[in-house]
Amino acid sequence: MHPLLPFFKPQGVAIIGASSNPTKLSFGIFKNLLQYGFQGKIYPVNPNAKEILGLTCYPDILSVPDPVDLAVSVVASNLTPAVLEACGQRGIKAVTIISGGFREIGPEGEKLEKQCLEIAHKYGMRLVGPNCVGTMDLYSGLNTTFIHGVPEKGHIGFLSQSGAICGGIVDYVRGKHIGFSNFVSLGNEADVTETDMIEYLADDPDTRVIALYVEAIKDGSRFMGVCEQVAKSKPIVLLKAGKTQAGAKAVSSHTGSIAGAITAYKTAFKQCGVIEVDTVTDLFDVAHVLTCQALPRGNRAVILTNSGGPAALASDSLGMHGFSLANLEKETQEVLRSHLNPSAQVSNPVDMLGGAEPEDYERSFKELAKDPNVDILLPILVPQALIKAEKVADAIVNAAKGLDKPVLCCFMGDEAVQEARRVLHKNGFPMFTFPDSLGRVLASMKFYADWIEKSHRKTEWEIRRHRSTVEEVLSQYKYQRLIGEKDTRPILEAYGIPVIAGGFAANLNEAQKLYQEFGPSVVMKIVSPHILHKSDVGGIRIGIRNPEELEAAYHQMMEEVKQKMPEAMIEGVLIEKMAPKGQEVIIGMKRDPVFGPLLMFGFGGIFVEVFQDVAFRIAPVDHQEAREMVFETKSGKLLTGYRNLPEFDVEGIVEGIQRLGQLALDFPQIAEVEINPCLVLPKGQGVLALDGRIVLAEEQS
Amino acid sequence: MHPLLPFFKPQGVAIIGASSNPTKLSFGIFKNLLQYGFQGKIYPVNPNAKEILGLTCYPDILSVPDPVDLAVSVVASNLTPAVLEACGQRGIKAVTIISGGFREIGPEGEKLEKQCLEIAHKYGMRLVGPNCVGTMDLYSGLNTTFIHGVPEKGHIGFLSQSGAICGGIVDYVRGKHIGFSNFVSLGNEADVTETDMIEYLADDPDTRVIALYVEAIKDGSRFMGVCEQVAKSKPIVLLKAGKTQAGAKAVSSHTGSIAGAITAYKTAFKQCGVIEVDTVTDLFDVAHVLTCQALPRGNRAVILTNSGGPAALASDSLGMHGFSLANLEKETQEVLRSHLNPSAQVSNPVDMLGGAEPEDYERSFKELAKDPNVDILLPILVPQALIKAEKVADAIVNAAKGLDKPVLCCFMGDEAVQEARRVLHKNGFPMFTFPDSLGRVLASMKFYADWIEKSHRKTEWEIRRHRSTVEEVLSQYKYQRLIGEKDTRPILEAYGIPVIAGGFAANLNEAQKLYQEFGPSVVMKIVSPHILHKSDVGGIRIGIRNPEELEAAYHQMMEEVKQKMPEAMIEGVLIEKMAPKGQEVIIGMKRDPVFGPLLMFGFGGIFVEVFQDVAFRIAPVDHQEAREMVFETKSGKLLTGYRNLPEFDVEGIVEGIQRLGQLALDFPQIAEVEINPCLVLPKGQGVLALDGRIVLAEEQS
Repeated sequence: MHPLLPFFKPQGVAIIGASSNPTKLSFGIFKNLLQYGFQGKIYPVNPNAKEILGLTCYPDILSVPDPVDLAVSVVASNLTPAVLEACGQRGIKAVTIISGGFREIGPEGEKLEKQCLEIAHKYGMRLVGPNCVGTMDLYSGLNTTFIHGVPEKGHIGFLSQSGAICGGIVDYVRGKHIGFSNFVSLGNEADVTETDMIEYLADDPDTRVIALYVEAIKDGSRFMGVCEQVAKSKPIVLLKAGKTQAGAKAVSSHTGSIAGAITAYKTAFKQCGVIEVDTVTDLFDVAHVLTCQALPRGNRAVILTNSGGPAALASDSLGMHGFSLANLEKETQEVLRSHLNPSAQVSNPVDMLGGAEPEDYERSFKELAKDPNVDILLPILVPQALIKAEKVADAIVNAAKGLDKPVLCCFMGDEAVQEARRVLHKNGFPMFTFPDSLGRVLASMKFYADWIEKSHRKTEWEIRRHRSTVEEVLSQYKYQRLIGEKDTRPILEAYGIPVIAGGFAANLNEAQKLYQEFGPSVVMKIVSPHILHKSDVGGIRIGIRNPEELEAAYHQMMEEVKQKMPEAMIEGVLIEKMAPKGQEVIIGMKRDPVFGPLLMFGFGGIFVEVFQDVAFRIAPVDHQEAREMVFETKSGKLLTGYRNLPEFDVEGIVEGIQRLGQLALDFPQIAEVEINPCLVLPKGQGVLALDGRIVLAEEQS
Repeated sequence: MHPLLPFFKPQGVAIIGASSNPTKLSFGIFKNLLQYGFQGKIYPVNPNAKEILGLTCYPDILSVPDPVDLAVSVVASNLTPAVLEACGQRGIKAVTIISGGFREIGPEGEKLEKQCLEIAHKYGMRLVGPNCVGTMDLYSGLNTTFIHGVPEKGHIGFLSQSGAICGGIVDYVRGKHIGFSNFVSLGNEADVTETDMIEYLADDPDTRVIALYVEAIKDGSRFMGVCEQVAKSKPIVLLKAGKTQAGAKAVSSHTGSIAGAITAYKTAFKQCGVIEVDTVTDLFDVAHVLTCQALPRGNRAVILTNSGGPAALASDSLGMHGFSLANLEKETQEVLRSHLNPSAQVSNPVDMLGGAEPEDYERSFKELAKDPNVDILLPILVPQALIKAEKVADAIVNAAKGLDKPVLCCFMGDEAVQEARRVLHKNGFPMFTFPDSLGRVLASMKFYADWIEKSHRKTEWEIRRHRSTVEEVLSQYKYQRLIGEKDTRPILEAYGIPVIAGGFAANLNEAQKLYQEFGPSVVMKIVSPHILHKSDVGGIRIGIRNPEELEAAYHQMMEEVKQKMPEAMIEGVLIEKMAPKGQEVIIGMKRDPVFGPLLMFGFGGIFVEVFQDVAFRIAPVDHQEAREMVFETKSGKLLTGYRNLPEFDVEGIVEGIQRLGQLALDFPQIAEVEINPCLVLPKGQGVLALDGRIVLAEEQS
């Protein structure tokens, strides 16, 4: 049995702090428990009442008879630890703490919350909340919330990190015939997190799609791991608040948690198959469609309409989201022509004109569904005076039942299409009010279909590397966080990332020796733990072509650097071969506090700075993902033989990204790596790190 | 009196083809005319009926008594010309043709439509339609549509190029308490166009905002001229269908009209102050807000909420659209702190927590409204069990009445907030269901506020130019459409756009002479009417440094060009000075069939091709608009002293754009101009056209 099952399908529920006063929230909870068909036992617990709404009231949880496997606590926060103790002694393994007054109010509440968690751990008990609205299971009838009303029974399992939002959503979805399996307010997530609940819903047979409202995720790696597995069989749709600076500020003042880098969030969602949406409406539209419709196998849609205007808007919506109007087979068009109004348009969009009858929809739909060029069907209706929208809905249901292509309907209006919506939703065909939503919803479906497809192609990979070399270099860095180019070079080499030939010279004499080795044309760079931007202080000389130039350059550099940064300790110089021709790019890694190593690829200079043309992934990335990074940037195409440019070694840079990811995974003490520039050589010749630096985490183990 | 007034406030209306059969659309129209309080005379015209719904029926329009100043024709298309003739003879100056069967069905219908238009011209009569749904005036009570129901009385004047969409929209807006002044279906626009109607609504005292659904505009220049004037005092909000390839295909198959280049449409809208939106929902949300709320004077918003989740979503929506959370004055926060729940958050977003009462909203709102750092107020409510949403609505109305800062409310839910919506909308405070719409709507308001501001700064300008030089050059191009660099040079010079020093040489001897003039370092380019891309055929040699090199280069070029394009007629070569250092950009013009000269600015090469980093405007552009073009591109910042780059002559390129616009306005026979590259020299040194070409329109006068 899943340990979270009692939160949804308990055999008996005790409401600790149940009140008989109708103005109290706990009364609301109690009423809801009684009202929605829950078949288990219900026990109000309150030492000051004999019975509530006709049920025997118990003075404390210890005196509650069997069966009882869920307690809902609505007592004040300072009384909660005692309640948990009693529940633990009573052998209850699942407690929902509705009450607020915990972490969200400051240090004192945080202490109480910690205390609750300790008690839970002692008894092997799971906690939902505190500071939450409770859970609903539309199949068992359990409703431990005080929300007015419940959504219809269906197949969306909804999880929310905001409790207040839940009431608004229930009110919104009711009457729209969008059905739910579960409805969960997570509260402060002292114990049970969104990830735990995703795991539970993954196993719940009534949940076909998991929808989430999320403000912050604590354990990003676990979240990604779980979602990646679950998403293979159940879609996960997610709305993240705190996606902008303003939003992050609002989230952190709301939950006290740090939203983390939104780039990392967005990257993580995309990578682990989580369908991210931008609005509450989209959250439920997309989740609903995925509960009942097939995924699109391609991007060619057909529109069947009784009005040109909405068809044009739908076409725009398709075009904006990467879909196209299918070219109908000649045969399809001929059949349509034979039974439609002679003025009707039988190419796509198929416009049957205002007089179209339900039978026209049915016959035409059937014809279009058969057309091999059609991946997606979009019937549109603007209600007309003489035709009932619900009859058209019936016709579409008849024609579309059992079809394995996605069907999204658009019936414009409100009152005139309400009955049609009921018919369509009841039969598993989602209806939209305006055609401009269609493309966006389809794009979410297509993202998911593509991810599923990709997830089957994921490749195992292992990189040969010399961990001990890296360990040795890092062991020298006890107090200093910045590793300059000199010591970054052996680290990169240990992980198989080639660096430009060169070496370290502590003085001019050693530098001259290195010139003999790497000349006739070399670069000289200052080595100092205090200099981050070498070129800003005159610490780089390129194109040194003989020993005399080297000597002059050496003295000049020492002088200039000393003048510009007198306090910098100078260790010596690096002497490196002049770089061959190639395309300069940047690869980097920055460890995100939530999701771990965030890898970055981009072209240097203005490409990154002016065009923000960069791509991100969370490590590890397989070959396919690293390749996607390169070509997600617009400048990526400059690597593949653009105009007069040669073809560069894409495979080399792809491998470099993977190797950098491995380095970050192996050494959690590394906070940042930047290889900039990384030179991509012509095809077959690999890459060369021309410069690089590493930043260590503040707290080293 | 405005000539279109009878379409809205006639003294008497004749319905020609009125039927007593309730299943006929004409019966629906007749019923609607009777139903909504229209105070003028109503005359059914039908030779086969004595009376309809109690009103005397007339056999023909000639026998209809006075007053009658509007006829609505619902007879078959082939009978329509006769009806118009009769109306003309009867002295009726306004006729709405509801019937379809005209241009939209093909050549035969097109002929009929033309015939109708001729009759209208003969009698000085204005036509709405054909193939339309009619007009409504919510103030006179006139309703010549067969739509079920009417929207509430209010201040949006709505114009639609799709008739079918109107019914859906009426059904959608009813019950949302969004009010209209007029509702117009334009049909085929045989005579009265959207622009005519915009002019009418500009004068209509009940219309505060004009909203349009548009598929195609015929006369772009007139549209722009009218909108630019009207938008100064009345906002125009517009939804354009056909914004993608798929959408344009759908529009053109729907209306038979060509949607034109969407870039030109979008550019034109932005330039003439038309607020373009992307969805039907936004069309009415934005229009409604503008009927009743002040424009934002800045971008600092405050959120007042009883729940953190929606506040976070609202903050994201703000952040995504260029708004920020206002930093509240310390004093404001102190006052809030003094009267709110001690756990409430008094910095922005102000979260009063779930227990917030209507009085909390009222007092806090009043405080926030006074804060000088606040430009925009966003009260948010998630309905709670113990607080009535409509009471909170009352509180906000009380606190916000008369405020000159925009107030947008968000009350989450459906049923639970319906009464609140009524209260808020009745009092001129728009309510949204979800916080994620707020930023988008505000962005539309801010766009308009900024445009109004800019429109006051518009500068008059006049360019000195030599039209006759251009006329002379163009006069030589009778059969050929492409003007190469040689003849483009004097045209640009005549309009004050500097070109690189150089001249034309018909043979080597002349080339040597030019070398003496322009050397010591020159460029040689082939001159041929048949060669479009000179460098592709070896037709450009740079860095020629002495007469011997010139001779060798000349012979080589002739040989190579002849080999690669044996059929090309070669006129000679251009000898030009080597270009100084500068930043290469492109300026161009392409004449749009709807809006005229579309000017383009962008950096060359990959900036345009890989990053699509270009900006557009319709000519003429004043100094400010041309400058905006440059800095609308991301690469624009490379001109102003980016990193190691010098500061380039932005004023020079701004002027170049204006001059190119003037050239395009003066010579409508020029279809395209491309100055590529145009070299921007360091600040103070202007620009230099290094190459250019002109394409003439296919039909030259």
